[in-house]
Amino acid sequence: MRGFFITLEGLDGCGKSTQLERLAAALSQRGLAVLATRQPGGTEIGTSIRALMIQQHSRLSPVAEVLLMMADRAQHVSDIIKPNLEAGRIVISDRYIDSSVAFQGYGRGLEITAVEALNDLATGGLLPDLTILFELNREAAQARLATRTEKQLTDSAPMTGFDDEQHDFHQRVQQGYWQLAARHPDRIHCVDADGSVNEVHQRVMALVLERLQELGVRS
Amino acid sequence: MRGFFITLEGLDGCGKSTQLERLAAALSQRGLAVLATRQPGGTEIGTSIRALMIQQHSRLSPVAEVLLMMADRAQHVSDIIKPNLEAGRIVISDRYIDSSVAFQGYGRGLEITAVEALNDLATGGLLPDLTILFELNREAAQARLATRTEKQLTDSAPMTGFDDEQHDFHQRVQQGYWQLAARHPDRIHCVDADGSVNEVHQRVMALVLERLQELGVRS
Repeated sequence: MRGFFITLEGLDGCGKSTQLERLAAALSQRGLAVLATRQPGGTEIGTSIRALMIQQHSRLSPVAEVLLMMADRAQHVSDIIKPNLEAGRIVISDRYIDSSVAFQGYGRGLEITAVEALNDLATGGLLPDLTILFELNREAAQARLATRTEKQLTDSAPMTGFDDEQHDFHQRVQQGYWQLAARHPDRIHCVDADGSVNEVHQRVMALVLERLQELGVRS
Repeated sequence: MRGFFITLEGLDGCGKSTQLERLAAALSQRGLAVLATRQPGGTEIGTSIRALMIQQHSRLSPVAEVLLMMADRAQHVSDIIKPNLEAGRIVISDRYIDSSVAFQGYGRGLEITAVEALNDLATGGLLPDLTILFELNREAAQARLATRTEKQLTDSAPMTGFDDEQHDFHQRVQQGYWQLAARHPDRIHCVDADGSVNEVHQRVMALVLERLQELGVRS
């Protein structure tokens, strides 16, 4: 079989990391070769970049920050995503190009075309075969985040909390995601993230299996 | 007085670092406030990025490398160059935007327009008032480099040596610099780097004083 590239997107707390694990396990059980990965991180260089971003977070200029993320992405694509796709695996990434457009572009106000140009440079134009955008209302996401013990670094790291000041930010990110979904309807599919882990997992699996079948991948 | 931004460019071994020290000292003696800086490095974040680049050098993808350099540049502009120009100082930087175009673009084959777009993003469009391009024939540069005790990291770091395999690379970089000079004749001025440190310093000073006078800066 040929490789197949799935990315999971959405606001923090939408449940995508849990769904990534479930999806990877379910596809593995069907005998498919799966690699789960995430950004930032995933390579030794990415881990160093991530450490630098956490350590220097309060001093990093917004542009320096997006450039560091893109450096991580370039290395991630070159070391992990491309070789695994070329080896015929299903690669599932927790966040990818759309996170940068939604969070850094729509959320923080960097120019959308600049972020897209950086994505294109960093990935060499490698697009996902399928992007799943998890949609959850803000209150539900907030409740999920409140139960977390360990703070996770994501594209929205400096904004991980959900206090009132950040409401506008998350609104802009959500609207950015919607605009992306509207612009790329063949690639980006929305999934309702409300419901139990199992319920959401069934929605995800239905989408993934349909897309794999369309592409003639045995599943 | 208003700030004034000078950048020094050229192949490794062209003598620009020595000339930077001499130029900064000479302008200071005239009572002007001067800040000398260099890239990569110059900020705490830049130092971390530089350490990462040295440590991971053999594994970094070319695109990740240029993105890390640009992250360093963005931070450098934001933390050092802009505030010092706003404070009315003369800022002299050892390498800046033209190094990336010449080394990463012309030298290593990254798309020129992509490198220029990254420069524009990283610097917020901040151009030097004067760029001095030091020109030295390859044999003279090689002889100068051979006397160095400590290897310096520059935009051309992985190519710092001058063995035969790298001849083509340096030819491409030199041609890139010439094309840049031809495209930006008002900003980029070539200086013959052959001769004693004093002789070259006199050429540099003549150029800088002329440009400061044109801009009405007291010198």
